[in-house]
Amino acid sequence: MSIDAAREYLQTQGKAVDAYLAQMFASHTRPARLFEAMNYSLLGGGKRLRPVLCLAAARALGRDEVEVLPVAAAIELVHCYSLIHDDLPAMDNDDLRRGKPTNHRVFGEALAILAGDALLTYAFEQLSRPLAIPADRQLRAIHVLAHAAGCYGMVAGQAEDILQTGGTGDAATLEFIHLHKTAKLLAASVEMGAIVAGADARQVEALREYGIHLGLAFQIMDDLLDVIGTTEELGKSAGADQQLDKLTYPKLFGVEATEKLAHDAVLRAKQALQAGGIASDVLFGMADFVIRRRS
Amino acid sequence: MSIDAAREYLQTQGKAVDAYLAQMFASHTRPARLFEAMNYSLLGGGKRLRPVLCLAAARALGRDEVEVLPVAAAIELVHCYSLIHDDLPAMDNDDLRRGKPTNHRVFGEALAILAGDALLTYAFEQLSRPLAIPADRQLRAIHVLAHAAGCYGMVAGQAEDILQTGGTGDAATLEFIHLHKTAKLLAASVEMGAIVAGADARQVEALREYGIHLGLAFQIMDDLLDVIGTTEELGKSAGADQQLDKLTYPKLFGVEATEKLAHDAVLRAKQALQAGGIASDVLFGMADFVIRRRS
Repeated sequence: MSIDAAREYLQTQGKAVDAYLAQMFASHTRPARLFEAMNYSLLGGGKRLRPVLCLAAARALGRDEVEVLPVAAAIELVHCYSLIHDDLPAMDNDDLRRGKPTNHRVFGEALAILAGDALLTYAFEQLSRPLAIPADRQLRAIHVLAHAAGCYGMVAGQAEDILQTGGTGDAATLEFIHLHKTAKLLAASVEMGAIVAGADARQVEALREYGIHLGLAFQIMDDLLDVIGTTEELGKSAGADQQLDKLTYPKLFGVEATEKLAHDAVLRAKQALQAGGIASDVLFGMADFVIRRRS
Repeated sequence: MSIDAAREYLQTQGKAVDAYLAQMFASHTRPARLFEAMNYSLLGGGKRLRPVLCLAAARALGRDEVEVLPVAAAIELVHCYSLIHDDLPAMDNDDLRRGKPTNHRVFGEALAILAGDALLTYAFEQLSRPLAIPADRQLRAIHVLAHAAGCYGMVAGQAEDILQTGGTGDAATLEFIHLHKTAKLLAASVEMGAIVAGADARQVEALREYGIHLGLAFQIMDDLLDVIGTTEELGKSAGADQQLDKLTYPKLFGVEATEKLAHDAVLRAKQALQAGGIASDVLFGMADFVIRRRS
Protein backbone atom coordinates (compact mmCIF):
# COMPACT_ATOMS: atom_id res chain seq x y z
CA MET A 1 0.00 0.00 0.00
CA SER A 2 1.39 3.39 -0.94
CA ILE A 3 0.09 4.97 2.27
CA ASP A 4 2.43 2.71 4.24
CA ALA A 5 5.30 3.68 1.95
CA ALA A 6 4.46 7.33 2.62
CA ARG A 7 4.28 6.80 6.39
CA GLU A 8 7.63 5.05 6.45
CA TYR A 9 9.25 7.65 4.19
CA LEU A 10 7.88 10.45 6.36
CA GLN A 11 9.34 8.83 9.44
CA THR A 12 12.77 8.05 7.98
CA GLN A 13 13.29 11.31 6.12
CA GLY A 14 11.63 13.28 8.92
CA LYS A 15 14.43 12.06 11.19
CA ALA A 16 17.04 13.16 8.66
CA VAL A 17 15.43 16.62 8.63
CA ASP A 18 15.35 16.65 12.45
CA ALA A 19 19.05 15.83 12.59
CA TYR A 20 19.90 18.50 10.04
CA LEU A 21 17.91 21.16 11.90
CA ALA A 22 19.35 20.14 15.26
CA GLN A 23 22.87 21.11 14.19
CA MET A 24 21.80 24.33 12.45
CA PHE A 25 21.93 26.60 15.52
CA ALA A 26 23.76 24.22 17.84
CA SER A 27 26.78 26.44 18.50
CA HIS A 28 26.24 29.11 21.11
CA THR A 29 25.89 32.58 19.61
CA ARG A 30 24.86 35.85 21.21
CA PRO A 31 22.25 36.53 22.45
CA ALA A 32 21.78 32.98 23.74
CA ARG A 33 18.13 33.62 24.63
CA LEU A 34 17.28 34.39 20.99
CA PHE A 35 18.81 31.14 19.78
CA GLU A 36 17.03 29.24 22.56
CA ALA A 37 13.72 30.70 21.37
CA MET A 38 14.50 29.77 17.76
CA ASN A 39 15.51 26.21 18.66
CA TYR A 40 12.51 25.82 20.95
CA SER A 41 10.12 26.08 18.03
CA LEU A 42 12.39 24.62 15.37
CA LEU A 43 13.19 21.46 17.32
CA GLY A 44 9.81 21.10 19.02
CA GLY A 45 8.66 18.10 17.05
CA GLY A 46 6.26 18.29 14.16
CA LYS A 47 5.80 15.94 11.23
CA ARG A 48 8.29 17.71 8.92
CA LEU A 49 5.72 17.22 6.16
CA ARG A 50 6.89 20.13 4.00
CA PRO A 51 10.61 19.32 3.86
CA VAL A 52 9.85 15.62 3.38
CA LEU A 53 7.57 16.47 0.44
CA CYS A 54 10.46 18.44 -1.05
CA LEU A 55 12.76 15.43 -0.65
CA ALA A 56 10.16 13.06 -2.08
CA ALA A 57 9.69 15.23 -5.16
CA ALA A 58 13.44 15.33 -5.79
CA ARG A 59 13.63 11.56 -5.24
CA ALA A 60 10.77 11.00 -7.72
CA LEU A 61 13.01 12.71 -10.27
CA GLY A 62 16.00 10.54 -9.41
CA ARG A 63 17.89 12.85 -7.09
CA ASP A 64 19.46 11.72 -3.79
CA GLU A 65 17.79 13.17 -0.70
CA VAL A 66 21.09 14.11 0.95
CA GLU A 67 21.82 16.69 -1.75
CA VAL A 68 18.42 18.34 -1.34
CA LEU A 69 18.34 18.37 2.48
CA PRO A 70 19.72 21.94 2.81
CA VAL A 71 16.88 23.20 0.61
CA ALA A 72 14.21 21.12 2.34
CA ALA A 73 15.36 22.37 5.75
CA ALA A 74 14.86 25.99 4.67
CA ILE A 75 11.17 25.28 4.07
CA GLU A 76 10.74 24.03 7.64
CA LEU A 77 12.33 27.26 8.91
CA VAL A 78 9.60 29.23 7.13
CA HIS A 79 6.90 26.93 8.47
CA CYS A 80 8.16 27.24 12.07
CA TYR A 81 8.39 31.04 11.85
CA SER A 82 4.78 31.15 10.68
CA LEU A 83 3.61 29.05 13.62
CA ILE A 84 5.34 31.36 16.12
CA HIS A 85 3.81 34.51 14.64
CA ASP A 86 0.36 32.93 14.14
CA ASP A 87 0.23 31.95 17.81
CA LEU A 88 0.99 35.49 19.09
CA PRO A 89 -1.59 37.22 21.31
CA ALA A 90 -2.30 39.77 18.56
CA MET A 91 -3.05 36.90 16.14
CA ASP A 92 -4.63 33.60 17.23
CA ASN A 93 -3.50 33.99 20.86
CA ASP A 94 -2.73 30.29 21.31
CA ASP A 95 -1.19 28.79 24.44
CA LEU A 96 -0.39 25.34 23.10
CA ARG A 97 1.52 24.09 20.06
CA ARG A 98 2.84 20.59 19.42
CA GLY A 99 1.86 19.70 22.97
CA LYS A 100 3.97 22.43 24.56
CA PRO A 101 3.45 26.07 25.60
CA THR A 102 3.70 28.39 22.59
CA ASN A 103 6.89 30.36 22.01
CA HIS A 104 5.64 33.67 23.44
CA ARG A 105 4.33 31.90 26.56
CA VAL A 106 7.89 30.76 27.28
CA PHE A 107 10.07 33.58 25.94
CA GLY A 108 7.72 36.57 25.92
CA GLU A 109 6.22 38.38 22.94
CA ALA A 110 9.26 40.43 21.93
CA LEU A 111 11.58 37.47 21.71
CA ALA A 112 8.91 35.36 19.99
CA ILE A 113 8.47 37.98 17.27
CA LEU A 114 12.25 38.18 16.83
CA ALA A 115 12.71 34.40 16.82
CA GLY A 116 10.13 34.22 14.02
CA ASP A 117 11.86 37.00 12.09
CA ALA A 118 15.20 35.25 12.52
CA LEU A 119 13.95 31.84 11.32
CA LEU A 120 12.34 33.42 8.26
CA THR A 121 15.49 35.36 7.40
CA TYR A 122 17.74 32.37 7.95
CA ALA A 123 15.72 30.36 5.42
CA PHE A 124 17.08 32.69 2.76
CA GLU A 125 20.57 32.76 4.24
CA GLN A 126 20.53 28.97 4.06
CA LEU A 127 19.18 28.84 0.49
CA SER A 128 21.73 31.32 -0.83
CA ARG A 129 24.87 29.78 0.58
CA PRO A 130 27.17 27.78 -1.68
CA LEU A 131 25.44 24.42 -2.31
CA ALA A 132 26.15 21.64 -4.79
CA ILE A 133 23.33 22.99 -6.97
CA PRO A 134 23.57 25.22 -10.07
CA ALA A 135 23.19 28.91 -9.08
CA ASP A 136 20.20 29.51 -11.36
CA ARG A 137 18.28 26.63 -9.74
CA GLN A 138 19.09 28.00 -6.28
CA LEU A 139 17.76 31.40 -7.34
CA ARG A 140 14.56 29.85 -8.71
CA ALA A 141 14.04 27.88 -5.49
CA ILE A 142 14.45 31.07 -3.45
CA HIS A 143 11.95 32.85 -5.66
CA VAL A 144 9.37 30.08 -5.38
CA LEU A 145 9.68 29.99 -1.58
CA ALA A 146 9.52 33.77 -1.13
CA HIS A 147 6.53 34.07 -3.44
CA ALA A 148 4.66 31.28 -1.64
CA ALA A 149 5.46 32.64 1.83
CA GLY A 150 4.90 36.38 1.43
CA CYS A 151 2.19 38.85 0.49
CA TYR A 152 1.09 36.77 -2.51
CA GLY A 153 1.01 33.58 -0.47
CA MET A 154 1.01 32.61 3.19
CA VAL A 155 1.04 36.10 4.70
CA ALA A 156 -1.91 37.11 2.48
CA GLY A 157 -3.80 34.02 3.69
CA GLN A 158 -3.08 34.74 7.33
CA ALA A 159 -4.05 38.41 6.93
CA GLU A 160 -7.35 37.49 5.25
CA ASP A 161 -7.95 34.89 7.98
CA ILE A 162 -7.45 37.52 10.70
CA LEU A 163 -9.62 40.05 8.88
CA GLN A 164 -12.43 37.48 8.41
CA THR A 165 -12.44 36.21 12.00
CA GLY A 166 -15.87 36.67 13.51
CA GLY A 167 -17.24 37.79 10.17
CA THR A 168 -19.49 36.20 7.59
CA GLY A 169 -17.16 35.23 4.74
CA ASP A 170 -18.29 33.08 1.84
CA ALA A 171 -16.86 29.92 0.25
CA ALA A 172 -14.68 31.92 -2.17
CA THR A 173 -13.07 33.76 0.75
CA LEU A 174 -12.51 30.51 2.59
CA GLU A 175 -10.83 28.98 -0.45
CA PHE A 176 -8.62 32.07 -0.79
CA ILE A 177 -7.51 31.68 2.84
CA HIS A 178 -6.74 27.97 2.60
CA LEU A 179 -5.05 28.25 -0.78
CA HIS A 180 -2.79 31.05 0.41
CA LYS A 181 -2.29 30.16 4.05
CA THR A 182 -1.49 26.49 3.55
CA ALA A 183 -1.60 25.12 0.01
CA LYS A 184 0.91 27.50 -1.57
CA LEU A 185 3.72 26.61 0.85
CA LEU A 186 3.06 22.88 0.42
CA ALA A 187 3.05 23.34 -3.35
CA ALA A 188 6.28 25.35 -3.12
CA SER A 189 7.84 22.47 -1.16
CA VAL A 190 7.36 19.94 -3.97
CA GLU A 191 8.09 22.55 -6.63
CA MET A 192 11.42 23.42 -5.01
CA GLY A 193 12.36 19.74 -4.86
CA ALA A 194 11.52 19.45 -8.56
CA ILE A 195 13.50 22.56 -9.53
CA VAL A 196 16.58 21.54 -7.58
CA ALA A 197 16.39 18.08 -9.15
CA GLY A 198 16.40 19.65 -12.62
CA ALA A 199 12.81 18.78 -13.61
CA ASP A 200 11.43 20.01 -16.92
CA ALA A 201 8.58 22.53 -17.09
CA ARG A 202 5.85 19.87 -17.40
CA GLN A 203 7.09 17.98 -14.34
CA VAL A 204 7.40 21.16 -12.28
CA GLU A 205 3.85 22.16 -13.21
CA ALA A 206 2.44 18.70 -12.40
CA LEU A 207 4.14 18.64 -9.00
CA ARG A 208 3.00 22.16 -8.23
CA GLU A 209 -0.59 21.19 -9.10
CA TYR A 210 -0.25 18.11 -6.90
CA GLY A 211 1.03 20.26 -4.05
CA ILE A 212 -1.85 22.73 -4.29
CA HIS A 213 -4.50 19.99 -4.02
CA LEU A 214 -2.55 18.17 -1.33
CA GLY A 215 -2.33 21.43 0.58
CA LEU A 216 -6.05 22.10 0.27
CA ALA A 217 -6.82 18.55 1.45
CA PHE A 218 -4.44 19.07 4.37
CA GLN A 219 -6.06 22.33 5.45
CA ILE A 220 -9.65 21.07 5.02
CA MET A 221 -8.62 18.17 7.27
CA ASP A 222 -7.10 20.63 9.72
CA ASP A 223 -10.44 22.43 9.96
CA LEU A 224 -12.13 19.08 10.52
CA LEU A 225 -9.69 17.91 13.20
CA ASP A 226 -10.31 21.13 15.10
CA VAL A 227 -13.94 19.96 15.39
CA ILE A 228 -13.61 16.18 15.78
CA GLY A 229 -10.11 15.85 17.32
CA THR A 230 -9.00 16.25 20.93
CA THR A 231 -6.38 18.62 22.33
CA GLU A 232 -4.34 15.60 23.38
CA GLU A 233 -4.30 14.11 19.87
CA LEU A 234 -3.63 17.42 18.16
CA GLY A 235 -0.99 18.82 20.50
CA LYS A 236 -2.73 22.18 20.08
CA SER A 237 -6.02 23.49 21.46
CA ALA A 238 -8.95 21.61 19.87
CA GLY A 239 -11.97 23.80 19.17
CA ALA A 240 -9.76 26.89 18.81
CA ASP A 241 -11.29 27.80 15.44
CA GLN A 242 -14.80 27.73 16.87
CA GLN A 243 -13.73 29.74 19.90
CA LEU A 244 -12.22 32.42 17.64
CA ASP A 245 -15.26 32.14 15.36
CA LYS A 246 -12.98 31.43 12.39
CA LEU A 247 -14.22 30.89 8.88
CA THR A 248 -13.78 27.13 8.29
CA TYR A 249 -15.17 24.39 6.04
CA PRO A 250 -17.20 22.64 8.78
CA LYS A 251 -18.68 26.01 9.72
CA LEU A 252 -19.80 26.68 6.14
CA PHE A 253 -20.68 23.17 4.94
CA GLY A 254 -20.92 20.84 7.96
CA VAL A 255 -18.71 17.83 8.78
CA GLU A 256 -19.95 15.40 6.13
CA ALA A 257 -19.65 17.70 3.11
CA THR A 258 -16.22 18.77 4.40
CA GLU A 259 -15.02 15.17 4.42
CA LYS A 260 -16.12 14.82 0.83
CA LEU A 261 -14.25 17.99 -0.17
CA ALA A 262 -11.08 16.62 1.38
CA HIS A 263 -11.44 13.38 -0.58
CA ASP A 264 -12.03 15.30 -3.81
CA ALA A 265 -8.85 17.29 -3.26
CA VAL A 266 -6.87 14.09 -2.68
CA LEU A 267 -8.21 12.67 -5.92
CA ARG A 268 -7.16 15.78 -7.83
CA ALA A 269 -3.69 15.63 -6.31
CA LYS A 270 -3.28 12.06 -7.56
CA GLN A 271 -4.62 12.97 -11.00
CA ALA A 272 -2.02 15.72 -11.28
CA LEU A 273 0.76 13.18 -10.63
CA GLN A 274 -0.65 10.82 -13.25
CA ALA A 275 -1.06 13.59 -15.82
CA GLY A 276 2.57 14.64 -15.30
CA GLY A 277 3.88 11.09 -15.52
CA ILE A 278 5.32 11.21 -12.00
CA ALA A 279 5.59 7.64 -10.72
CA SER A 280 6.13 7.88 -6.97
CA ASP A 281 4.53 5.54 -4.48
CA VAL A 282 5.47 7.94 -1.69
CA LEU A 283 3.84 11.01 -3.26
CA PHE A 284 0.65 9.01 -4.03
CA GLY A 285 0.60 7.67 -0.50
CA MET A 286 1.18 11.10 0.99
CA ALA A 287 -2.09 12.25 -0.52
CA ASP A 288 -3.94 9.55 1.39
CA PHE A 289 -1.90 10.21 4.49
CA VAL A 290 -2.86 13.87 4.89
CA ILE A 291 -6.55 13.04 5.27
CA ARG A 292 -6.09 9.95 7.44
CA ARG A 293 -3.90 11.67 10.03
CA ARG A 294 -5.23 12.45 13.52
CA SER A 295 -2.78 15.27 14.29
CA MET B 1 32.75 69.93 -0.74
CA SER B 2 32.04 66.23 -0.75
CA ILE B 3 29.30 66.61 1.86
CA ASP B 4 27.31 68.71 -0.62
CA ALA B 5 27.87 66.06 -3.31
CA ALA B 6 26.56 63.46 -0.86
CA ARG B 7 23.50 65.52 0.05
CA GLU B 8 22.63 66.09 -3.59
CA TYR B 9 23.19 62.44 -4.49
CA LEU B 10 21.04 61.34 -1.55
CA GLN B 11 18.25 63.61 -2.71
CA THR B 12 18.39 62.67 -6.41
CA GLN B 13 18.85 58.93 -5.95
CA GLY B 14 16.49 58.90 -2.96
CA LYS B 15 13.77 60.09 -5.33
CA ALA B 16 14.61 57.31 -7.79
CA VAL B 17 14.27 54.80 -4.93
CA ASP B 18 10.96 56.39 -3.87
CA ALA B 19 9.60 56.09 -7.40
CA TYR B 20 10.72 52.47 -7.68
CA LEU B 21 9.12 51.55 -4.34
CA ALA B 22 5.91 53.42 -5.17
CA GLN B 23 5.17 51.11 -8.10
CA MET B 24 6.16 47.93 -6.26
CA PHE B 25 2.78 47.22 -4.63
CA ALA B 26 0.72 49.72 -6.62
CA SER B 27 -1.69 47.21 -8.14
CA HIS B 28 -4.54 46.16 -5.91
CA THR B 29 -4.11 42.66 -4.49
CA ARG B 30 -6.04 40.81 -1.82
CA PRO B 31 -6.28 41.51 1.06
CA ALA B 32 -6.17 45.25 0.31
CA ARG B 33 -5.68 46.14 3.98
CA LEU B 34 -2.40 44.20 4.11
CA PHE B 35 -1.01 46.03 1.09
CA GLU B 36 -2.16 49.35 2.57
CA ALA B 37 -0.24 48.56 5.75
CA MET B 38 2.86 47.62 3.74
CA ASN B 39 2.72 50.76 1.60
CA TYR B 40 2.02 52.93 4.64
CA SER B 41 5.45 52.17 6.08
CA LEU B 42 7.29 51.65 2.80
CA LEU B 43 6.21 54.95 1.28
CA GLY B 44 6.16 56.94 4.51
CA GLY B 45 9.21 59.05 3.74
CA GLY B 46 12.62 58.34 5.17
CA LYS B 47 16.04 59.27 3.83
CA ARG B 48 16.54 56.06 1.79
CA LEU B 49 20.10 56.07 3.13
CA ARG B 50 20.67 52.32 2.78
CA PRO B 51 19.55 51.88 -0.85
CA VAL B 52 21.34 55.07 -1.87
CA LEU B 53 24.56 53.77 -0.28
CA CYS B 54 24.12 50.61 -2.35
CA LEU B 55 23.74 52.69 -5.51
CA ALA B 56 26.72 54.89 -4.61
CA ALA B 57 28.95 51.86 -4.08
CA ALA B 58 27.97 50.44 -7.47
CA ARG B 59 28.51 53.84 -9.08
CA ALA B 60 31.97 54.12 -7.47
CA LEU B 61 32.82 50.92 -9.36
CA GLY B 62 31.51 52.28 -12.66
CA ARG B 63 28.05 50.69 -12.71
CA ASP B 64 24.90 52.62 -13.71
CA GLU B 65 22.44 53.16 -10.85
CA VAL B 66 19.42 52.08 -12.89
CA GLU B 67 20.73 48.50 -13.15
CA VAL B 68 21.25 48.26 -9.38
CA LEU B 69 17.95 49.86 -8.32
CA PRO B 70 16.06 46.52 -7.93
CA VAL B 71 18.75 45.34 -5.50
CA ALA B 72 18.91 48.64 -3.62
CA ALA B 73 15.12 48.67 -3.21
CA ALA B 74 15.21 45.25 -1.53
CA ILE B 75 17.41 46.68 1.23
CA GLU B 76 14.85 49.38 2.00
CA LEU B 77 12.16 46.67 2.31
CA VAL B 78 14.23 45.03 5.05
CA HIS B 79 14.81 48.35 6.78
CA CYS B 80 11.09 49.22 6.74
CA TYR B 81 10.08 45.81 8.08
CA SER B 82 12.51 46.26 10.97
CA LEU B 83 11.02 49.65 11.85
CA ILE B 84 7.48 48.21 11.96
CA HIS B 85 8.47 45.33 14.24
CA ASP B 86 10.74 47.48 16.45
CA ASP B 87 7.87 49.90 17.09
CA LEU B 88 5.42 47.18 18.25
CA PRO B 89 4.01 47.37 21.80
CA ALA B 90 5.95 44.24 22.78
CA MET B 91 9.20 45.89 21.59
CA ASP B 92 9.84 49.66 21.86
CA ASN B 93 6.12 50.53 21.97
CA ASP B 94 6.50 53.68 19.86
CA ASP B 95 3.59 55.84 18.69
CA LEU B 96 5.44 58.00 16.21
CA ARG B 97 7.69 57.25 13.23
CA ARG B 98 8.75 59.60 10.45
CA GLY B 99 6.31 62.15 11.85
CA LYS B 100 3.29 59.83 11.55
CA PRO B 101 1.54 57.31 13.83
CA THR B 102 3.38 53.97 13.79
CA ASN B 103 2.03 51.10 11.70
CA HIS B 104 0.32 49.22 14.54
CA ARG B 105 -1.36 52.44 15.74
CA VAL B 106 -3.07 52.69 12.36
CA PHE B 107 -3.59 49.06 11.32
CA GLY B 108 -3.51 47.17 14.62
CA GLU B 109 -0.86 44.81 15.91
CA ALA B 110 -1.79 41.73 13.87
CA LEU B 111 -1.64 43.50 10.53
CA ALA B 112 1.53 45.38 11.53
CA ILE B 113 3.30 42.11 12.31
CA LEU B 114 2.11 40.64 9.00
CA ALA B 115 3.04 43.76 7.00
CA GLY B 116 6.56 43.49 8.45
CA ASP B 117 6.74 39.78 7.63
CA ALA B 118 5.55 40.50 4.09
CA LEU B 119 8.08 43.28 3.43
CA LEU B 120 10.93 41.10 4.72
CA THR B 121 9.85 38.16 2.58
CA TYR B 122 9.35 40.31 -0.50
CA ALA B 123 12.94 41.56 -0.24
CA PHE B 124 14.04 38.03 -1.13
CA GLU B 125 11.34 37.58 -3.77
CA GLN B 126 12.61 40.79 -5.37
CA LEU B 127 16.29 39.79 -5.17
CA SER B 128 15.70 36.35 -6.68
CA ARG B 129 13.66 37.36 -9.70
CA PRO B 130 15.31 37.46 -13.13
CA LEU B 131 17.53 40.58 -13.19
CA ALA B 132 20.20 41.73 -15.62
CA ILE B 133 22.83 40.47 -13.15
CA PRO B 134 24.77 37.17 -13.23
CA ALA B 135 23.00 34.54 -11.08
CA ASP B 136 26.02 33.93 -8.84
CA ARG B 137 26.21 37.64 -7.95
CA GLN B 138 22.49 37.69 -7.18
CA LEU B 139 22.94 34.70 -4.86
CA ARG B 140 25.86 36.40 -3.08
CA ALA B 141 23.84 39.58 -2.64
CA ILE B 142 20.96 37.58 -1.12
CA HIS B 143 23.37 35.85 1.23
CA VAL B 144 24.96 39.11 2.38
CA LEU B 145 21.55 40.68 3.05
CA ALA B 146 20.12 37.68 4.90
CA HIS B 147 23.24 37.31 7.03
CA ALA B 148 23.23 41.02 7.95
CA ALA B 149 19.49 41.06 8.71
CA GLY B 150 18.98 37.85 10.66
CA CYS B 151 20.16 36.12 13.83
CA TYR B 152 23.81 36.97 13.13
CA GLY B 153 22.98 40.59 12.38
CA MET B 154 20.09 42.96 12.91
CA VAL B 155 17.75 40.58 14.75
CA ALA B 156 20.56 39.65 17.16
CA GLY B 157 21.17 43.36 17.82
CA GLN B 158 17.50 44.06 18.43
CA ALA B 159 17.17 41.03 20.72
CA GLU B 160 20.21 42.06 22.77
CA ASP B 161 18.83 45.62 22.90
CA ILE B 162 15.50 44.36 24.27
CA LEU B 163 17.22 42.05 26.76
CA GLN B 164 19.49 44.87 28.01
CA THR B 165 16.74 47.48 28.41
CA GLY B 166 16.67 48.74 31.99
CA GLY B 167 19.78 46.75 32.77
CA THR B 168 23.40 47.69 33.41
CA GLY B 169 25.21 46.65 30.23
CA ASP B 170 28.82 47.60 29.55
CA ALA B 171 30.55 49.21 26.56
CA ALA B 172 31.20 45.87 24.87
CA THR B 173 27.48 45.04 25.01
CA LEU B 174 26.61 48.45 23.63
CA GLU B 175 29.03 47.99 20.75
CA PHE B 176 27.54 44.56 20.04
CA ILE B 177 24.08 46.09 19.85
CA HIS B 178 25.04 48.97 17.56
CA LEU B 179 27.22 46.81 15.33
CA HIS B 180 24.48 44.25 14.84
CA LYS B 181 21.36 46.39 14.97
CA THR B 182 22.55 49.10 12.59
CA ALA B 183 26.07 48.83 11.22
CA LYS B 184 25.76 45.40 9.62
CA LEU B 185 22.80 46.35 7.43
CA LEU B 186 24.51 49.57 6.33
CA ALA B 187 27.66 47.60 5.56
CA ALA B 188 25.59 45.03 3.65
CA SER B 189 24.11 47.86 1.58
CA VAL B 190 27.48 49.01 0.22
CA GLU B 191 28.74 45.43 -0.01
CA MET B 192 25.75 44.39 -2.11
CA GLY B 193 26.32 47.33 -4.44
CA ALA B 194 29.94 46.28 -4.79
CA ILE B 195 29.11 42.62 -5.44
CA VAL B 196 26.47 43.43 -8.05
CA ALA B 197 28.94 45.79 -9.76
CA GLY B 198 31.48 42.99 -9.99
CA ALA B 199 34.01 44.35 -7.49
CA ASP B 200 37.12 42.32 -6.62
CA ALA B 201 37.65 40.90 -3.12
CA ARG B 202 39.79 43.85 -1.96
CA GLN B 203 37.18 46.39 -3.04
CA VAL B 204 34.34 44.44 -1.43
CA GLU B 205 36.27 44.23 1.84
CA ALA B 206 37.12 47.95 1.80
CA LEU B 207 33.51 48.95 1.18
CA ARG B 208 32.28 46.58 3.86
CA GLU B 209 34.75 48.09 6.35
CA TYR B 210 33.59 51.57 5.31
CA GLY B 211 29.96 50.54 5.85
CA ILE B 212 30.61 49.15 9.33
CA HIS B 213 32.23 52.37 10.56
CA LEU B 214 29.65 54.51 8.77
CA GLY B 215 26.94 52.46 10.46
CA LEU B 216 28.50 52.83 13.88
CA ALA B 217 28.81 56.59 13.37
CA PHE B 218 25.17 56.67 12.27
CA GLN B 219 23.93 54.80 15.33
CA ILE B 220 26.09 56.74 17.81
CA MET B 221 24.60 59.89 16.27
CA ASP B 222 21.13 58.35 16.63
CA ASP B 223 21.73 57.90 20.35
CA LEU B 224 22.89 61.49 20.56
CA LEU B 225 19.93 62.91 18.63
CA ASP B 226 17.58 61.12 21.04
CA VAL B 227 19.11 63.30 23.77
CA ILE B 228 19.74 66.61 21.99
CA GLY B 229 17.11 66.51 19.20
CA THR B 230 13.40 67.38 19.32
CA THR B 231 10.46 65.16 18.40
CA GLU B 232 9.61 67.63 15.63
CA GLU B 233 13.08 67.41 14.06
CA LEU B 234 13.34 63.65 14.43
CA GLY B 235 9.84 62.65 13.33
CA LYS B 236 9.93 60.12 16.15
CA SER B 237 9.65 60.53 19.91
CA ALA B 238 12.75 62.30 21.27
CA GLY B 239 13.92 61.01 24.64
CA ALA B 240 12.45 57.57 23.92
CA ASP B 241 15.75 55.81 24.76
CA GLN B 242 15.91 57.49 28.15
CA GLN B 243 12.27 56.74 28.84
CA LEU B 244 12.83 53.05 28.08
CA ASP B 245 16.12 53.20 30.01
CA LYS B 246 18.00 51.89 26.96
CA LEU B 247 21.71 51.26 26.91
CA THR B 248 23.15 54.12 24.80
CA TYR B 249 26.46 55.93 24.28
CA PRO B 250 25.37 59.17 26.01
CA LYS B 251 24.16 57.11 28.96
CA LEU B 252 27.53 55.35 29.29
CA PHE B 253 29.95 58.12 28.27
CA GLY B 254 28.11 61.46 28.28
CA VAL B 255 27.39 63.74 25.31
CA GLU B 256 30.89 65.08 24.67
CA ALA B 257 32.72 61.77 24.58
CA THR B 258 29.91 60.36 22.40
CA GLU B 259 30.47 63.12 19.83
CA LYS B 260 34.14 62.23 19.72
CA LEU B 261 33.35 58.55 19.18
CA ALA B 262 31.13 59.46 16.23
CA HIS B 263 33.92 61.52 14.68
CA ASP B 264 36.41 58.69 15.18
CA ALA B 265 34.08 56.29 13.39
CA VAL B 266 33.70 58.71 10.46
CA LEU B 267 37.49 58.96 10.20
CA ARG B 268 37.82 55.17 10.11
CA ALA B 269 35.15 54.94 7.42
CA LYS B 270 37.12 57.36 5.23
CA GLN B 271 40.39 55.53 5.89
CA ALA B 272 38.80 52.29 4.72
CA LEU B 273 37.86 53.93 1.40
CA GLN B 274 41.39 55.26 0.96
CA ALA B 275 42.99 51.93 1.81
CA GLY B 276 40.77 50.20 -0.75
CA GLY B 277 41.50 52.77 -3.46
CA ILE B 278 37.81 53.73 -3.73
CA ALA B 279 37.64 57.26 -5.14
CA SER B 280 34.08 58.45 -4.55
CA ASP B 281 33.24 61.98 -3.51
CA VAL B 282 29.74 60.83 -2.59
CA LEU B 283 30.87 58.01 -0.28
CA PHE B 284 33.37 60.31 1.46
CA GLY B 285 30.72 62.98 1.84
CA MET B 286 28.19 60.47 3.15
CA ALA B 287 30.48 59.80 6.10
CA ASP B 288 30.35 63.47 7.07
CA PHE B 289 26.64 63.60 6.37
CA VAL B 290 25.61 60.89 8.84
CA ILE B 291 26.98 62.85 11.81
CA ARG B 292 25.80 66.29 10.66
CA ARG B 293 22.19 65.26 10.16
CA ARG B 294 19.46 66.42 12.53
CA SER B 295 16.97 63.64 11.79
